[in-house]
This record gives sequence, C-alpha cells and structure tokens, in this order.
Amino acid sequence: MAEQGVGASINTPTIEQIFRHASVRQYKQDPVSTEMVETVVAAGQRSSTSSNLQTYSVVAITDAETKARLAELSGSQGHILQAPLLLVWCADLSRLDRVCEMRGYRQVTSYVESFLVAAADAAIAMQTAALAAESMGLGMCYIGAIRNQPQEVITLLRLPRLVFPISGMTLGWPAVEPLIRPRLPLEAILHWESYDSGQEIDALEAYDRTMIETGIYRGRQVAVPGGDGQEGDYGWLEHSARRASTAVRTDLRQVLKQQGFELA
Amino acid sequence: MAEQGVGASINTPTIEQIFRHASVRQYKQDPVSTEMVETVVAAGQRSSTSSNLQTYSVVAITDAETKARLAELSGSQGHILQAPLLLVWCADLSRLDRVCEMRGYRQVTSYVESFLVAAADAAIAMQTAALAAESMGLGMCYIGAIRNQPQEVITLLRLPRLVFPISGMTLGWPAVEPLIRPRLPLEAILHWESYDSGQEIDALEAYDRTMIETGIYRGRQVAVPGGDGQEGDYGWLEHSARRASTAVRTDLRQVLKQQGFELA
Repeated sequence: MAEQGVGASINTPTIEQIFRHASVRQYKQDPVSTEMVETVVAAGQRSSTSSNLQTYSVVAITDAETKARLAELSGSQGHILQAPLLLVWCADLSRLDRVCEMRGYRQVTSYVESFLVAAADAAIAMQTAALAAESMGLGMCYIGAIRNQPQEVITLLRLPRLVFPISGMTLGWPAVEPLIRPRLPLEAILHWESYDSGQEIDALEAYDRTMIETGIYRGRQVAVPGGDGQEGDYGWLEHSARRASTAVRTDLRQVLKQQGFELA
Repeated sequence: MAEQGVGASINTPTIEQIFRHASVRQYKQDPVSTEMVETVVAAGQRSSTSSNLQTYSVVAITDAETKARLAELSGSQGHILQAPLLLVWCADLSRLDRVCEMRGYRQVTSYVESFLVAAADAAIAMQTAALAAESMGLGMCYIGAIRNQPQEVITLLRLPRLVFPISGMTLGWPAVEPLIRPRLPLEAILHWESYDSGQEIDALEAYDRTMIETGIYRGRQVAVPGGDGQEGDYGWLEHSARRASTAVRTDLRQVLKQQGFELA
C-alpha cells in the first residue's frame, strides 16, 4: 500500500511532486510573472472538461486594494494580502449563454446538473493549474472562504449572471517549507467493487492518533463553536465532527439563484 | 501566451505531461495492478481538501458484470467494458456522519455548501489521480454519464446515504494515441482584475474555425436533438449551443435529496 505522507510505492516525477504538495500560507514579496500565470491557467485548460464545454473562468487579481477587500471577505486570511496573486476560479455558464445567443438557441441552466458540471469543470481545471504551478516551484492555497460572502465577491469582481466563485487560490513563492499533512489511510477512501465501510473504524482511529501526534489541531478548539477548551485530546475526529456539525455559508442557494442557477 | 494544444511557454516535466493529456476511449486488455490503483488513489489523496475533511470516496470496479451494467447505465460507452478498471469518484459525507456519531455531534448536511464542498473535494482528488495515472503511461476518460441514472448506480454500488457519484473514470493502457483537442484561446477563460467578456467574441469565433478544421464534431448532428443534418458548418459554437440547450439529468436534485443532500 502507498504510505500516506511518505511517498508512493510507484514513483514518477509527477507522483513525487504530488506527494510533496502542501498548502502554502506564507509567501515572499516576489511577483509571479504574467507568463507564469498564463502558463498555469493554460495548463488548467488542458484538463478534461465535460463535453468540451469548458464551463469555467478564472479572474486573476494582483491589485492590492482588491486583494485586501477579498481578504476581508474571506475571513481575513493574511496570505491573500501577502501573495502576489489571487486566482478566483468560477463556474461559468454565462459564456454558453452568449454562445447560444450567437447560434439561436436558449440555454437550460435550471437544473442541479448544470451547476454541478460547471463546478466540477472549474475544480478539475484549478487542480491541474495548481500542479502546474507547483511544478515551477510556486506555492498555492485554496480559499474556500471566497464563498463566505459570495454576493460581495460577485459584485467586486463584476461576475455576470451564471458565473459563481467556486474557490480562490493564492499563488506565490513560498516563504517557508510548508507542513505536509498526513491523510486518511487509503482503505478509508478506496472501496473495491462496492462501497463498504465495515473496516473503516480502525483506519479512522489510527488516523486520529496520527493527527493528535502531529499537534496540527492543538489549540484550535477556542476558534470553533462548542470548543470545550480541553488540550491534548484534539485530533482529526474532533476537528472534523466540530466542522461538520457547524452550519456555514447557508446563503449559497439564494445567491446562486440570484446568479441564475436555479438548482431545480 | 501559452499556445493551446501545442505546448506551454514555460516547461516542466509535469507541465509537458499535462499538455499531452487526451481522453482515452480505446484500451488494451492488459490489467492495471492493484499497486497502481492504490498509488493513483493515494496520489489523489495528497491533493488539498477543504478543512482536511476528505469528503470523497472512490469505488474501484474490475468485475466484468458490474462494469457491463455500469456501461449500460452510462449510455453504453464501450470503453467501460474494454478498460480493465472503472473508478467511480463520489462526494461522501457519510464518513463524517460516522465521525460525528463517534464524537457525539450531529452533522449539518442540508445546505448547498455541504454538497459543493464534497463534490469539489472529489473533483480535485480525481484530477490529481488522473495526472498520477497518466504519468505512469495509463490512459483515462471521465464518465459524466455515470449520472445518467444515478439511483441505479447508487443501488448497484451500495452507496449509503450521503454518498453520491460525481464522475466515473475508465483507467487502462491506451490502445491508440488519442487526439489532443484544442481548447478555447486563453483570453476567453482568463480575466485580469475583474470579469470582462468584452473581447470574447473574436476568441470564440477563432476557436470555432479551429474546431471546424479538426472535423471533431463532423457528422455529430444526427445524434443531437434539433440536428438539421447540415454538414461542414459544425464547430464548437454549434456543438456547445446544442448541448447547452438540451436538458439532461433533470432528476439529480430528487436523487440527491433521497441520498440526504437537501441542497437548501
């Protein structure tokens, strides 16, 4: 079995790079060249895309004021200010609206399927772009908190109807070597022939012990609703249970509807 | 600017590999070893995942009968039968339900946000896995049609409540050199500082001419509702407008609801 956080049992340069991934939240001041940004996004474009419809867009932000506002809107994450560049990856069906108009058709955007295709297209492209960036020595970090206040982000970036921000991505030169986080044992994720969580509990408990040892979540409890202040016994199980039981971003459906995604 | 379908202006081994990607729909009979499958999925696990919650799972299918049934359910795509392996990548919040139970919490799954996080986690992991597979010389193709009859797939693979199939992925040894498809000019996808589609039309029309030249969509019109039988004038604009104006998979919301995703 490929050991998590250590290395794969079969190695290629790409796999070695994938196993070195860690999110970067501290960046040097050095800029990322336009050519690099274009190469990173063009690499993202090479990914598979549903029916070749390419239903995503990316807004690259270098302007300090816009970055500062986006950092505020995303829970004041300091690395958005620090990174020379923020990419905002969006599900985009607006381009297809324009294509339909050019050819005398009318787009169907009312179903969950339409949004899912566009969101998955964006996620696939952004992950390829992330790996392309990391292969150049750049660091990146996803900003899911770009969805904390989606209407404000939409207004700020002038996203038209049928465009919705899926994730931000800071991009820049790492100032420190980031920590590679262990992941769940493979058997908790990979099922053969059909889904079976029968053997899962041992894997979850082993992972919990690993994460307690790393101390990654130590001291985190104060920031989470329901934190009981107990130190030491704070692993992945407790972290995940608290996260999963906390309602966040409950206005997405409403904002998606305003953007033209009915999710019928 | 990085030229589409030709190569990037900045090259690393990973970027060169990304630019060679093409979906493979014809496979040799040779099996994919268990070790390879495990390495591919473990590589997917190394990707970023929202709050480290790892809200996805993958079901690996080698059984000929199950593959045959999934091929039927996915619009009879022959390469599902041919490929030694089909991976079904799923959004999975059921594991967090079990984690919450272990720690005495109750999961919030009712909002669009919960589903979007899980679907994006799955998409990010599967794309990293795809690139890991391709780096070993394997070929892959996404099967969005796994969502054609989602309830049947859920039953067949015994997916529990809060697990939903996002995409299939055939995996195997390519029998032929697949065609690398040109993509939209970068300027149609990448916006600087804010969204602006003002210059888009030239890019769309240039791409349409490129795609007409490749002949990729030639002869396709008969398979699409509303096809007028005209040959020759069938590029990306017409392909995309027809796709975008055809309602498909209109039952996803209903099946998602049955699986516990309220999408409130």
